[in-house]
Amino acid sequence: MKQRAKNLAGITIGTLLAASVVTFSMVSSASDNMSDETQQTTNAAKNVILLIGDGMAESQISAAAYLNGAGYGAEDLTMDQFKNVGYARTFSHDNTVTDSAAAATAFSSTHKTDNGVVGKAPKNKEHHENEQHFDVQTVLEAAEESNMSTGLVSTARITHATPAAFASHIDDRNKENNIAEQMLLDHDVDVLLGGGKRQFIPKETGGKRKDGKNLLELAEDHGYQLIENKADMKKTDASKLLGLFNDSHMTYELDRELTDEPSIDEMTNKALDVLQQDDNGFFLMVEGGRIDHAGHSNYPATNIQETLAFDKAVKEALDFAKKDKNTLVIVSSDHETGGMSIGANGEYGYNKEVIRNVKRSPEYISKQLDKNDANLEEVIKKYTGITNLTKKEMKFITSSQNKASAIANIISERALIGWTTTGHTAVNVPVYAYGPQAEKLTGTIDNTEIAEVINFTTSKSFSSQNLIDQVKQFSKNGELTDEKVTRLLFTHLETVRQFEDQNKADKVVKQLEHFHILIDKQKERNSLSNKAYQTLKDGTDALIAKWE
Amino acid sequence: MKQRAKNLAGITIGTLLAASVVTFSMVSSASDNMSDETQQTTNAAKNVILLIGDGMAESQISAAAYLNGAGYGAEDLTMDQFKNVGYARTFSHDNTVTDSAAAATAFSSTHKTDNGVVGKAPKNKEHHENEQHFDVQTVLEAAEESNMSTGLVSTARITHATPAAFASHIDDRNKENNIAEQMLLDHDVDVLLGGGKRQFIPKETGGKRKDGKNLLELAEDHGYQLIENKADMKKTDASKLLGLFNDSHMTYELDRELTDEPSIDEMTNKALDVLQQDDNGFFLMVEGGRIDHAGHSNYPATNIQETLAFDKAVKEALDFAKKDKNTLVIVSSDHETGGMSIGANGEYGYNKEVIRNVKRSPEYISKQLDKNDANLEEVIKKYTGITNLTKKEMKFITSSQNKASAIANIISERALIGWTTTGHTAVNVPVYAYGPQAEKLTGTIDNTEIAEVINFTTSKSFSSQNLIDQVKQFSKNGELTDEKVTRLLFTHLETVRQFEDQNKADKVVKQLEHFHILIDKQKERNSLSNKAYQTLKDGTDALIAKWE
Repeated sequence: MKQRAKNLAGITIGTLLAASVVTFSMVSSASDNMSDETQQTTNAAKNVILLIGDGMAESQISAAAYLNGAGYGAEDLTMDQFKNVGYARTFSHDNTVTDSAAAATAFSSTHKTDNGVVGKAPKNKEHHENEQHFDVQTVLEAAEESNMSTGLVSTARITHATPAAFASHIDDRNKENNIAEQMLLDHDVDVLLGGGKRQFIPKETGGKRKDGKNLLELAEDHGYQLIENKADMKKTDASKLLGLFNDSHMTYELDRELTDEPSIDEMTNKALDVLQQDDNGFFLMVEGGRIDHAGHSNYPATNIQETLAFDKAVKEALDFAKKDKNTLVIVSSDHETGGMSIGANGEYGYNKEVIRNVKRSPEYISKQLDKNDANLEEVIKKYTGITNLTKKEMKFITSSQNKASAIANIISERALIGWTTTGHTAVNVPVYAYGPQAEKLTGTIDNTEIAEVINFTTSKSFSSQNLIDQVKQFSKNGELTDEKVTRLLFTHLETVRQFEDQNKADKVVKQLEHFHILIDKQKERNSLSNKAYQTLKDGTDALIAKWE
Repeated sequence: MKQRAKNLAGITIGTLLAASVVTFSMVSSASDNMSDETQQTTNAAKNVILLIGDGMAESQISAAAYLNGAGYGAEDLTMDQFKNVGYARTFSHDNTVTDSAAAATAFSSTHKTDNGVVGKAPKNKEHHENEQHFDVQTVLEAAEESNMSTGLVSTARITHATPAAFASHIDDRNKENNIAEQMLLDHDVDVLLGGGKRQFIPKETGGKRKDGKNLLELAEDHGYQLIENKADMKKTDASKLLGLFNDSHMTYELDRELTDEPSIDEMTNKALDVLQQDDNGFFLMVEGGRIDHAGHSNYPATNIQETLAFDKAVKEALDFAKKDKNTLVIVSSDHETGGMSIGANGEYGYNKEVIRNVKRSPEYISKQLDKNDANLEEVIKKYTGITNLTKKEMKFITSSQNKASAIANIISERALIGWTTTGHTAVNVPVYAYGPQAEKLTGTIDNTEIAEVINFTTSKSFSSQNLIDQVKQFSKNGELTDEKVTRLLFTHLETVRQFEDQNKADKVVKQLEHFHILIDKQKERNSLSNKAYQTLKDGTDALIAKWE
């Protein structure tokens, strides 16, 4: 399904693979004797599905499972069925508390970066201020290089930080118009489903683009079928899809029945339908993007219903993987949002009925209030089931500038859901994995390890050709100035390629070891820049690991 | 080391084993195809060490790991080295948010119970109000029956809910004097180390006992060596230890250097020294009891330092297990306390230095203030490193009724640590396991499964004799009234015992299947009470599972 491979500046797949190898060996030595049965290495999967619950950690998952449980107990979510589980650290390069851009870059590319930065890593690992960031290859890009199909699905704008970190490189996550352009034109993502239409069309036609470009027209030139509603998504049998179901973020699950938008599990199902046609396999990322928004707003019922909707997408993915038997499914999160807890203000309990009775998001409910809030009690009763609003609560709502927030606050207090912040928190997030390589993601890991494990699959076609391309690139951009040295490197790598073609593993490894010594020497002589040396060394190590 | 086996009323080991079998088979069918490599069953361990961080969930663990990390990152705790990890649901029989008594009963006995109840389960599973609770056998008691050595270690009062749930049966956790008595006289725990001396001595000598009993004297009659400080603990080579290092809870780790109390890792080390002498193996429970107290009080630095101290005890246990190669180590928690978060009030960050600079607990600091708080700035500077206390902060402290709480509040705000409650929350808690059977505790589990897995080891000597004892007990207490039936049951079980002695597995199983049919029939004829039927059936199933 891929028509072209791409040249990528900056850190390449070699670095990724090498990082992967290094970390795995660290893990196995650190965990010395720690249940060897979880340390098995199996083959790379054919397909990878990564599902990210944005802003979702164990509190959100617990609240969702308990909501569905009888009595005081819980009902298993699909997430609860995974046996390979872990905890991921989420800190970014410039804060213990990450944002979505830095977290997504970590698990899209193996690189920690600064909050707000997408698909780029800091040049100087120590000092992040006033520095430039350089592009880092993402697992989606590696999958494209391996001629796999790719897809991105989100209930947020498709140009929002999480999906953006897989198919764009930009120093500021807010430049969503640029992200849309990079996503669509610099990549060849087969399935893009989510919100954010406004970033694709000019201001004149109701969009956010001041450059007058209509990316939707360009998308059609690139072979995309455009869809804008659930019915059209169901109908289409196109193999390249751009579905933009809302100008901005898609509608909260609680209010979605009022729209013609598909659910996250329907989008996931559609994406899988399209992508599984590729014999080379696929990489798909699915984001439950609005768990985070409900967390920022401290909306308890909305948050929990978004988590439950996300879990249905997890079910689609897991069902597919169980049937397919060659698909790696990873479910995780970028960070927790809201500092949410079950139990609050010194009280013990979880009044599930309060949450269950909420029928719409606070945003929707607040919009139903007429002038002077004359219909307050009626509206609250209709959409939250609360029939005994106290005078104090009424006054709290009517006197609030943000009525949606006030309504949410009352629901939280009655349900005994607590919040510490309207921002993110740094608690380790859950990681659930199933399929080939899943056992690599148990225990406490760094969020970059998620990308490392995915890369084991998506970069499976890595070869000496990649090293040759790197040398070409470095020669072109001045990181490698001595022509003699350049030729020497090419000669060595050409020999590696011949042995690769003959499938002579021993000789490939031996030749690569020589190549390693060669670049060590050139480094000493300053014929190679630090960056070029590091990249080539990492790539060499990775190839050695592959052939050994 | 055990001189006697004990008869226990109520639910016995059979039920426990049966529950275990049922749950495991449920897990393996539910997780159908879910990474079979984590489903391996190995032999029972020789020893079991269970470590409980009271009030500790992923937030507390993350905050502790980040505190020790360089820059914005974290440093691995010992807990972070476990590869078999899971999440445990903690809800109790009468609340989604559990207390320590119900949670500890769940993982000491496999039974959900009501908040406040220790070592007893509700008679009627559906309706918990106004009902009687019946004693349930704990893993410690099963270990005693199996002639293993046992130990309980806690930084809280040794009569507090968590240790109490392993060696007492009582309808109200506050009856700590009774708990002390049951713990000491109804059991034969080899090592008891912790706080709570006041529950063991009469009011007249500074204790809390109004019955005039001096349990310390009785303890000596039972062969205990009494110790009261770290130096004596180090010195002693006694094989039966009662160490009570504080009248109430032991001192917070931050203030401990001012006392002669041992640390939790030193107590753990001592307990292991004593218990490992037993060739029959041992069961040891270690509780980091004061993480919870610091959580209730919303003391950030105290909470995090208690977690770090607890992690050192985990290291002692893990080091022992790695060397021993036949010890199951489980680390978990009863519930989260405080709704704690890293990041708060809309701000992104974790100001570690603020936490690192705190040298004493808020309780200690507040006691250093003189009348009218004239030395406020000096005291705050000395013990928290804060040199720029604002006027607003000063006023906040001086005007507060609870000055310790006010000081803690300022530390939380400056460090960006958030709290939602002074009580517990219902987030799933982490479970870390190492050693034989560890792979049973991955994924999302119920906290009762921890007891099931421990019982696989502690009840390893379960046999037809236990069924015979049960029949005797039921005959004695009127659950089994027909003498003919009683004789019939005895005859059958006697045959089972003979086959057991001859190690004829096939015949044991066949005879037990007949016994199963027999009790089914007697149940139909109402010759057996519901309770007797259920207990014998569970025990029979468990024995069949053992011999199959």
